[in-house]
Amino acid sequence: MAYQVTQSDLEAIALGGAFLGTGGGGDPYIGKLMARQAIAEHGPVTVIAADEVADDTLCVPVFMMGAPTVMLEKLPSGDEILKALAELETFLGKKAGALICVEAGGLNSTIPFMVAAATGLPLIDGDGMGRAFPELQMVTFTMHGIASSPMVVADDKGNSALMSTISNLWTERLARVVAVQMGGAALVAAFPMNGADMKKALLHGTMTTIRDIGNTILSERKASRHPGAALRAMTGGAHLFTGRVVDVQRATEGGFARGKLTLRGIDDFAGQEFLVHFQNEFLLAETATGAPICMTPDLICALDADMGLPVTTEQMRYGMTVEFSAIPADPQWHTPAGLELAGPKYFGYDHEFRPFTTGERA
Amino acid sequence: MAYQVTQSDLEAIALGGAFLGTGGGGDPYIGKLMARQAIAEHGPVTVIAADEVADDTLCVPVFMMGAPTVMLEKLPSGDEILKALAELETFLGKKAGALICVEAGGLNSTIPFMVAAATGLPLIDGDGMGRAFPELQMVTFTMHGIASSPMVVADDKGNSALMSTISNLWTERLARVVAVQMGGAALVAAFPMNGADMKKALLHGTMTTIRDIGNTILSERKASRHPGAALRAMTGGAHLFTGRVVDVQRATEGGFARGKLTLRGIDDFAGQEFLVHFQNEFLLAETATGAPICMTPDLICALDADMGLPVTTEQMRYGMTVEFSAIPADPQWHTPAGLELAGPKYFGYDHEFRPFTTGERA
Repeated sequence: MAYQVTQSDLEAIALGGAFLGTGGGGDPYIGKLMARQAIAEHGPVTVIAADEVADDTLCVPVFMMGAPTVMLEKLPSGDEILKALAELETFLGKKAGALICVEAGGLNSTIPFMVAAATGLPLIDGDGMGRAFPELQMVTFTMHGIASSPMVVADDKGNSALMSTISNLWTERLARVVAVQMGGAALVAAFPMNGADMKKALLHGTMTTIRDIGNTILSERKASRHPGAALRAMTGGAHLFTGRVVDVQRATEGGFARGKLTLRGIDDFAGQEFLVHFQNEFLLAETATGAPICMTPDLICALDADMGLPVTTEQMRYGMTVEFSAIPADPQWHTPAGLELAGPKYFGYDHEFRPFTTGERA
Repeated sequence: MAYQVTQSDLEAIALGGAFLGTGGGGDPYIGKLMARQAIAEHGPVTVIAADEVADDTLCVPVFMMGAPTVMLEKLPSGDEILKALAELETFLGKKAGALICVEAGGLNSTIPFMVAAATGLPLIDGDGMGRAFPELQMVTFTMHGIASSPMVVADDKGNSALMSTISNLWTERLARVVAVQMGGAALVAAFPMNGADMKKALLHGTMTTIRDIGNTILSERKASRHPGAALRAMTGGAHLFTGRVVDVQRATEGGFARGKLTLRGIDDFAGQEFLVHFQNEFLLAETATGAPICMTPDLICALDADMGLPVTTEQMRYGMTVEFSAIPADPQWHTPAGLELAGPKYFGYDHEFRPFTTGERA
C-alpha cells in the first residue's frame, strides 16, 4: 500500500538504513540532510508497493558509489544524480516511472528520497540487497539476470560516463575506477528495468522495514532502553558480542574503505577478543583465533553500546563500546548464486559460508 | 587533392608514422596488418584534403589509447573501433562523413585506414599532433577549443563507455583508467567536430608527409643508404646523436609505458653518454649531466643505426645502436598554449622549453 514520507520520517529512515547498512551504505546524517532539503522544497515522497507498479514502467535504481570515507568529506549537491538519471532516460528514450533503492544504508536509502522528491517520481518499497554490500553487482537484480548497464556515473564537476558492459562485474570494474578518478565517489543511475522484472527481482518491503527499524531505535531510546534487543526480536537476529574497540586498521584503497577492527569483549563477553573485517561494510566477525562467528552475506550490524545508535565503519574509533548483532540475510543470498556473488570466498576469506553463531557468554 | 591508398602503400605509411611517432603511437607492424586486411576485404581508402570536406560534415578521429607495451600483446580485432564509432554516431544522431587520424604513429596512423576501408569513409589528410603524444588532450583540437567528448571507449570483450566531460583533461583522466581496466588498451572515437572546425584545428597534410617519409625510408634502404640524412633534409631535422643502448628502465604504470634509456655515444659522439626519457613517446633527450639537447614538443625520432628503420620505445634493447634525430614540432606547439599542453613542465621535467641542439661531435 502506498504511503507518504515527509521530513519527520527521515530521521527513522536514516537510522534504520544505517542499521541494515552493516557499517556501510554511507553516513546517515548526510543522507537525511539531503532528503530533508529536497522534501522541504518539493513536498513529500510517495512510497508504493512493487505490485502497484505497471509491468511496462521503467524503474531505475539511483545511488552513490564509492568509499564512505570519501562521501563524508565530499557531499553530493544532488544535481549529479538527477543528471545521471536524465542522461540514462535520454539514452533509453524513455522516462523513468518509479525509482528503486539499491541497498539499505544511511546514505543510499535516503538519496532515493531526495531524487523522488526532486522528480516527483514514486519510490518503490524494496531494494536490491536487503542490506548494504560494497560492490555494484551484489544485488538480487544480478541473480535475476537484470543488466546493470546502460548505466550513468556522474560527478559534482559535470563529468559523466555512460557504460555499456557485457556483465555486471564489468560494470563494477569500469565504474569503480571512474568513481575513484571522479574524487572517490560518484552518483549513479543503473539497472534500468521494467516493472515486471522489478517485481521478480526486488526484495520487497525493504523501505518499510527500514522505517520500522528506525522508529524502533527512536522509541526504545526515548524509553531509555538500548534498542539492540528489540531490533533482534524484529529481525530474527542474535547478539554476537559486545566489545570495546582496541584497534582500527583502515585504508581507502581501490575505491573502497577496507580494514579490520579488534575488539575486547565486555560484560557477558569479557575475556574474549574479536575481529571484524570490513570493505565498506562489515563482512566477517571472528574470534581472536580466527574462528568465524558471522560472515557475509548475513548481516553484521553495529550499535553503539551506550547510545544505541548505528555505527558505520568510518565512525569506529579506539575506545568505543559496540554491540554487534547478526541478522540472517534474505534467503536468496544463501543460494549458491547468492553466495557466489557475495559470500565469504568472493571477498577472499578462506571460510565456507555457515550460519552465524555468537560469542561465548561467560 | 584526393588520392587512393592501396595495400602497397601501407608499408610506407606504417614506417613514416612510426618515425614521426617518436617511439610511440604503437607498433607499425600490427597497424599495417590490420589496415592491409581491411583494404584487402573492402578496397582502397580515399585520402582527401581538408578543404574538400564540407563545413557541416561530421569528422571523427579514431584511435587506440593505452600503453604500447600492452598493444603489442593484445591485438585489437577491429570490431571494437567500429563499435566505438557507431555508438558515437548514435549518440550524436548523425553519421560521420570523414575520419581523422589523431596522431602520427605506427599503429595510430594505420588504424584510421582500417576504419576507413571498413566504413567506406574518406580519411582526411591531416592529424591533431604532427607526431605522437602520450595523452589524449595533447592535440591541436584542444588548442582550438574542440571538446574531446562525447567520446566512446570500447574494448575487445564488448564493453564500452560514453564519456561526457567538462574538459579534455578530464576525458584523459577518466578514459585512461577505463582503458587500464579494459586490459591496458582500448579503442576510441572522440573529438567529433564539423568540417569547418576541422579545417581550422587540423595539422594539414600529415598523412601525405607520413607516406612520403615512409617512401624515403624504403627508397634509401633500397639504395643501401641509411635514411637518416634524407629524412632530416625533408623535415628540417638535425642529427642529435648516435649511440648504443647500455640501459633500459621501463615500467607500465598508470596506463603508460614510462622509462629511461641510457646510451653511450658512438662514431662522432664517442665518449659521451646520453639519456632519453619516455612516456609512450620519447620526450626528453639529455646529456649524462642532465643538460637538455631536445625536449617535447619537438620530435625525438629514433632509427636503428644499422637497419635504418624506426625504433619504438618498447623495441629498445640493450646493445642496439640507435640514431636519434630531432625535428621541430609544428609552430602551434611552440606557443604558450602548446607548451602548456605538451611542453617539458607538463611532464614534470624541470626545464624551460628551448629549441633543440645536438650532441657535441668529436
